[in-house]
Amino acid sequence: MYRNTKNVPFYILGKGSFAQLGDLVDARRAAVAGPAVFFVDHFFRGRELEGRLPKKDGDLVLFVDTTNEPTTEQIDDFAAATRAHDNRLPCTVVAIGGGATLDVGKAVANMLTNPGQAADYQGWDLVKNPAPHKIGVPTLSGTGAECSRTCVLLNAKRGIKLGMNSDITMYDQLLLDPELTRTVPRDQYFYTGMDTYMHCIESLRGSYRNVIVDALAQKAVDMCEEIFLSDDMMAEENLEKMMIASYLGGMSAGNVGVIHPISAGLSVVLHTHHGIANCYALSVLGEFYPEDYPKYARMIERQGVNLPKGLCANLSDDQLKALVASSVVHEKPLTNALGPDFRKILTDEKVISLFKAM
Amino acid sequence: MYRNTKNVPFYILGKGSFAQLGDLVDARRAAVAGPAVFFVDHFFRGRELEGRLPKKDGDLVLFVDTTNEPTTEQIDDFAAATRAHDNRLPCTVVAIGGGATLDVGKAVANMLTNPGQAADYQGWDLVKNPAPHKIGVPTLSGTGAECSRTCVLLNAKRGIKLGMNSDITMYDQLLLDPELTRTVPRDQYFYTGMDTYMHCIESLRGSYRNVIVDALAQKAVDMCEEIFLSDDMMAEENLEKMMIASYLGGMSAGNVGVIHPISAGLSVVLHTHHGIANCYALSVLGEFYPEDYPKYARMIERQGVNLPKGLCANLSDDQLKALVASSVVHEKPLTNALGPDFRKILTDEKVISLFKAM
Repeated sequence: MYRNTKNVPFYILGKGSFAQLGDLVDARRAAVAGPAVFFVDHFFRGRELEGRLPKKDGDLVLFVDTTNEPTTEQIDDFAAATRAHDNRLPCTVVAIGGGATLDVGKAVANMLTNPGQAADYQGWDLVKNPAPHKIGVPTLSGTGAECSRTCVLLNAKRGIKLGMNSDITMYDQLLLDPELTRTVPRDQYFYTGMDTYMHCIESLRGSYRNVIVDALAQKAVDMCEEIFLSDDMMAEENLEKMMIASYLGGMSAGNVGVIHPISAGLSVVLHTHHGIANCYALSVLGEFYPEDYPKYARMIERQGVNLPKGLCANLSDDQLKALVASSVVHEKPLTNALGPDFRKILTDEKVISLFKAM
Repeated sequence: MYRNTKNVPFYILGKGSFAQLGDLVDARRAAVAGPAVFFVDHFFRGRELEGRLPKKDGDLVLFVDTTNEPTTEQIDDFAAATRAHDNRLPCTVVAIGGGATLDVGKAVANMLTNPGQAADYQGWDLVKNPAPHKIGVPTLSGTGAECSRTCVLLNAKRGIKLGMNSDITMYDQLLLDPELTRTVPRDQYFYTGMDTYMHCIESLRGSYRNVIVDALAQKAVDMCEEIFLSDDMMAEENLEKMMIASYLGGMSAGNVGVIHPISAGLSVVLHTHHGIANCYALSVLGEFYPEDYPKYARMIERQGVNLPKGLCANLSDDQLKALVASSVVHEKPLTNALGPDFRKILTDEKVISLFKAM
């Protein structure tokens, strides 16, 4: 049995296309009676973009504090706030931001039509009822959240970082305006762009493969290398190119390898953001990615980005233990990369030595 | 204003995935009361595939004679036959075949919910009412018909070859089983595969561009070169690769150049099939495609495929005039390739000399 793969049904791409958001939202207002609900990265509070939101009376704007990665509790709170604002379902949920904000939009929408709490839906195909219409507007390129079927959430109680993997989680419409990424700090632009590079090389080097995923992933990898080996990763044409690489990488996203589990450990235990956590992970995984690690090293050097050493230098034994546990729990990706006996390679000692080398 | 681009919402990909067609159709039966209607390339009549159709009582199977390219009259006849069989709308329209059959499925579905005749809808965004659900099952790779928003039809009265360009025309579901292409005659496999190569190089060399289309088109071109410069274009792994190249090329299809208009002339006047007509066109267009023509020449030689010379050697003046008219009528692609003054380059004499060189 092969999986029936869903694509994001619609996308608009182009410099300045943010101006078309109003038309997209109005089309939804014409179709459904509820309000438009906007989730906006708190970075934009008080900035020019806030004034350009196509907001009307009765709509709701919620800012998403992305200082830390989204949690299941945060989703439950946002869902409650949305319901309290208007008991009708939104005509559309619009998320404007990086991967964290895009994932919040997906997760909250799921919770508006599915009973219980966000934590109940972390896993594969647990979401049952269709969500309200959703529009994704990335302002940062690389996570692939705009077209993936997951929304990754931290769950402190269970000590895991896991998404609501479901076709229902996907956006119905994307608006891809490269101009929105122009103001991203350079380091963050690099770390996040590298997320595309990393989930694609993990997919390409793994054992769970198919030709279409390989084709999209390889194209995204090639584009990342062009961007990050060029003189300026944030040059005009690269902003657009990176937005597409993220989109293609997200479409191909499926099976990651060793990088994402190690990265997830950092996020769960140290609250390290996903993009930079991936960079820390690959920085010590050269033995598993012998072709790709040297390219990554050239890219980070070329762009003059700094990854401070010593992230895990002064951790307690309990913290190191927690790092191991929240990494090796990701059996599917680690099996994809290293086979079912991955724990013979990734012993506790080995994993601890990797973290200590960061 | 940027266009809102639609993707094919769902696809299943894999060797042997044809066995899942029954599940897809059953899901539609559960949703909608009407019959399943199958359009099947007449090549499969009496063959093993016919016996594997997930047909139930009340369903309709119509074989599509693809000796010639589909015409508007043929679509009207099929639509009438479908309505006569059952006055309810089909729960799904399944098309199984090459580009011609896939286009028939799209066009007939449009005519089941839109009044008038097929010829009324040749053009851009003329189809107004949503069509019944459609499943596309390609048995030949290269046209991109499985994921394009058009269905190309010959219209003898108007002397044109033009599709119903509309999001509504697109398939709702694809089933991509590379095994179905194994029995395609070698020459046809080559000509049809080259369709992907050609519409992608036309897009890449044109002036109407965008980064996402370029990325997909370039990937499809690269895959075609791998396939057709390998020892055997029909080796196991190449069947799957070509199916993906066609899919990616179809997703990127937008703006063609000089090849397709010249090819369309051959189809309108001489009823030459699209794939081989494209090959004839590129065979005389080296001056416009200086990078790509030599690669094409290497590919056709490597695969030992024959393109008999002298296609237009003995035509009447009227036929030559008709060839010119039905080529230069395609202003949009010719402007894309050569600019608005394309007729200064493609004079009547020049176009006639191209046809005579085939």
